[in-house]
Amino acid sequence: MEKSRNMTMLVDYYELTMASGYFESGKKDTIAYFDVFYRKNPDGGGFAIAAGLQSVIDYVKNLRFSEQDIEYLRGKGGFSEAFLEYLANFKCTCDIWAIPEGTPVFPGEPLLTVRGPLIEAQIMETYILLSINHQSLIATKTNRIVRAAQGRPVMEFGSRRAHGDAAAIMGARAAYIAGAAASACVKADIDYGVPAIGTIAHSWIQVFGDEMAAFRAYANLHKDNCSLLVDTYDVLNSGVPNAIKIFKEFKPAQMSIRIDSGDIAYLSRCARKILDDEGLTQCKIIASNSLDEYLIRDMLSQNAAIDSFGVGEKMITAKSEPVFGGVYKLVAVEENGNISPRIKISENIEKITNPGFKKPIRFYDKTTGKAVADLVMLADEIINENEPYKLFDPEFSWKKKIIRNFEVRELAVPVFEKGKLVYEEKTTEEVRKYCREQLDTLWPEVMRFENPHHYYVDLSEKLWMMKRDLLEGHSYKE
Amino acid sequence: MEKSRNMTMLVDYYELTMASGYFESGKKDTIAYFDVFYRKNPDGGGFAIAAGLQSVIDYVKNLRFSEQDIEYLRGKGGFSEAFLEYLANFKCTCDIWAIPEGTPVFPGEPLLTVRGPLIEAQIMETYILLSINHQSLIATKTNRIVRAAQGRPVMEFGSRRAHGDAAAIMGARAAYIAGAAASACVKADIDYGVPAIGTIAHSWIQVFGDEMAAFRAYANLHKDNCSLLVDTYDVLNSGVPNAIKIFKEFKPAQMSIRIDSGDIAYLSRCARKILDDEGLTQCKIIASNSLDEYLIRDMLSQNAAIDSFGVGEKMITAKSEPVFGGVYKLVAVEENGNISPRIKISENIEKITNPGFKKPIRFYDKTTGKAVADLVMLADEIINENEPYKLFDPEFSWKKKIIRNFEVRELAVPVFEKGKLVYEEKTTEEVRKYCREQLDTLWPEVMRFENPHHYYVDLSEKLWMMKRDLLEGHSYKE
Repeated sequence: MEKSRNMTMLVDYYELTMASGYFESGKKDTIAYFDVFYRKNPDGGGFAIAAGLQSVIDYVKNLRFSEQDIEYLRGKGGFSEAFLEYLANFKCTCDIWAIPEGTPVFPGEPLLTVRGPLIEAQIMETYILLSINHQSLIATKTNRIVRAAQGRPVMEFGSRRAHGDAAAIMGARAAYIAGAAASACVKADIDYGVPAIGTIAHSWIQVFGDEMAAFRAYANLHKDNCSLLVDTYDVLNSGVPNAIKIFKEFKPAQMSIRIDSGDIAYLSRCARKILDDEGLTQCKIIASNSLDEYLIRDMLSQNAAIDSFGVGEKMITAKSEPVFGGVYKLVAVEENGNISPRIKISENIEKITNPGFKKPIRFYDKTTGKAVADLVMLADEIINENEPYKLFDPEFSWKKKIIRNFEVRELAVPVFEKGKLVYEEKTTEEVRKYCREQLDTLWPEVMRFENPHHYYVDLSEKLWMMKRDLLEGHSYKE
Repeated sequence: MEKSRNMTMLVDYYELTMASGYFESGKKDTIAYFDVFYRKNPDGGGFAIAAGLQSVIDYVKNLRFSEQDIEYLRGKGGFSEAFLEYLANFKCTCDIWAIPEGTPVFPGEPLLTVRGPLIEAQIMETYILLSINHQSLIATKTNRIVRAAQGRPVMEFGSRRAHGDAAAIMGARAAYIAGAAASACVKADIDYGVPAIGTIAHSWIQVFGDEMAAFRAYANLHKDNCSLLVDTYDVLNSGVPNAIKIFKEFKPAQMSIRIDSGDIAYLSRCARKILDDEGLTQCKIIASNSLDEYLIRDMLSQNAAIDSFGVGEKMITAKSEPVFGGVYKLVAVEENGNISPRIKISENIEKITNPGFKKPIRFYDKTTGKAVADLVMLADEIINENEPYKLFDPEFSWKKKIIRNFEVRELAVPVFEKGKLVYEEKTTEEVRKYCREQLDTLWPEVMRFENPHHYYVDLSEKLWMMKRDLLEGHSYKE
């Protein structure tokens, strides 16, 4: 299927240089653990929404080097024939755990963990990061915009400003998962079942030259649901009055007008009054034109009479902060059957990694069902739900919090076991529904735009001590 | 070839709604003219670099609806069988003119013009915009970063933060066209000949546990050109001293160190001194870590001892301004053999379009070879190079400028004639070379980052008068 192309060569060259190096140094089969995590919520928000796992699954399923790929690498030089032969027979045998798409996530917790032969896990870095970074970015941004619209449908209209075809398609999917009501992108509908919708552009009006003629031609073809674009010439003096004449003439079951320029808050209120005065209270008003969560919030605070929003460039590029800085870091290797943690120390404190084979868990309050905190712990640790649990801040370790009456949930689930897919792939609708349910477990304070409540992602005591020991030991001894 | 996939269904749904409407209203074969243009240079710059044409060419060559596409549309409802049959036999018969990739361009001038049956030209809108917007954005941003580096090589390292796979691949190509020296993206090399390069990540160092062991293993495999990443533990106390030991031991023909965190300006100067004191003056220093044109300029103003830059997320997403706002506007239709101009009037003045079938030309000073101004004129107008030409500002029409001793060049070239490719496709290297040559025709004042000289893009008198008449006549009569 076209949507799951072989993307093996969408890889940073250094992954292959390192793969070759591991191969030549006898390290290729060392079992390694890599974590994907991010450090900061985009836009100063309180959380992000995980997305991109389906692309990772499609990628891993198709992961193999073609003859042409091998030929290309031979031509580049620096790779031994033994290594090229290894690549020609490459097959992923890794284990992968991941937090499912649609889950609200927080900085510092592993969104995805790869365990497997070092050489394989290294090669997958670029594509895994690319998928998760891009799609989590768009999902997170879209949900902000959807929240600002306070229940009014938000439609994704951004393909023309997306960063290439995959950004349009996968971006539309991520937007839909995170709450967009529909998309303009037809291919996202065909490939992923994102409902595609659309009516007319200004060119339709211009072609007919006369606005009434253009509206009439459209209404004649859309008798059930007629949506007219009213800002080609003059919204209040031409577009709206002409639309009203057409609606009265054709009496469509559903009707709406779209305003795509000008002072939309003002124009929408005026248009609403004109429509209501003419008895067309059922006519909806759609707004578009470089909107985002801030503009939408602002319009609604001005009592804009808008029933739904079309959002383009600022959603599909996450314009306010177009980078989701997920990283892929080595956290452990197996040595003589033991898991030996690894840390990256950095002069930038925030770039220091959490070592070891870990899992993220979430505490829910039993009474409210709300998420209370997340904890990153070593994979073999267990929480006793029947005893109070003492959380402490990994950075400011004197800050402690005892939680009681909780349930815990492991956030990450097995996706691949020894290269075999063990995760039941979800439909886009299932992911969207799950995302909505998960968002309901967040306190509103975590979801606000400005100064959201800081949701705790703490380290277990065992993990924290391991990290401290490694930091103090510094150059870790094998 | 995989790189030229069929992207027919990467289309906004409303293009199909309109296509269907034109079909049913007997307008489908009306000959229409659409212009692609943009309104504002990104980042307050003085110009942009056109890119994305190769993707448009690949798209148009592959433009056809599959049986599955027709089936999908039938399932959506609202499309007549006659229309679906038309789509099943769809073949592009349009003429397309475009300014070649790599050309410096300015707001308001047509980057690409489509002439053909309305129904065909409408369907192509989404993909044409998506390609030109994305790739012009990345080319423009990259060239800013390359200029800031003042001749030092800049390498594109952004795949992991790109907005999906196409953003990584086509972004790497756009970056290379606009002056990046190389890319980490292997697939951009395979598909487009962008030289891919790469060495090691922190994971390499961490796997060996011991920095010296990791350096030695790498040096052993890269005796000609050894590049060591020195910031895994401590740049000055561990990374650089260890790298020096290795360079002295292995004596590689070429050697470099890379610093990826910390105060890079400071660390690079210290590292330079340590290297020089040890006689390793030939060792290069590479910097990476969320760089852009401003950080690079700032580092160089602090005498940072950096020989080349790796730039990732801020280039591949054009983070400072990730939207290139190109639009696709109907500018004319043919009626009874005459070209009848169309205008879009808007309450946002800057959204008013330039009507008519037009062409952009560039005036060059004969003595200096520098570009003096651009002019948008009607397609049948001719400039007499032997007479002075009076330019005037379309907005402030009293601002006039007489130019003499000039040559003119038509910027747009024919790409498709009646759906047949007539443009000789260029290699990536050819486009890159052309871009460099074209940039040499710009005055430095146009290229600076802050308050660049405003380069004139004027309208011919005939075009300006047509626009004025349409604006005043307002509702244009057929």
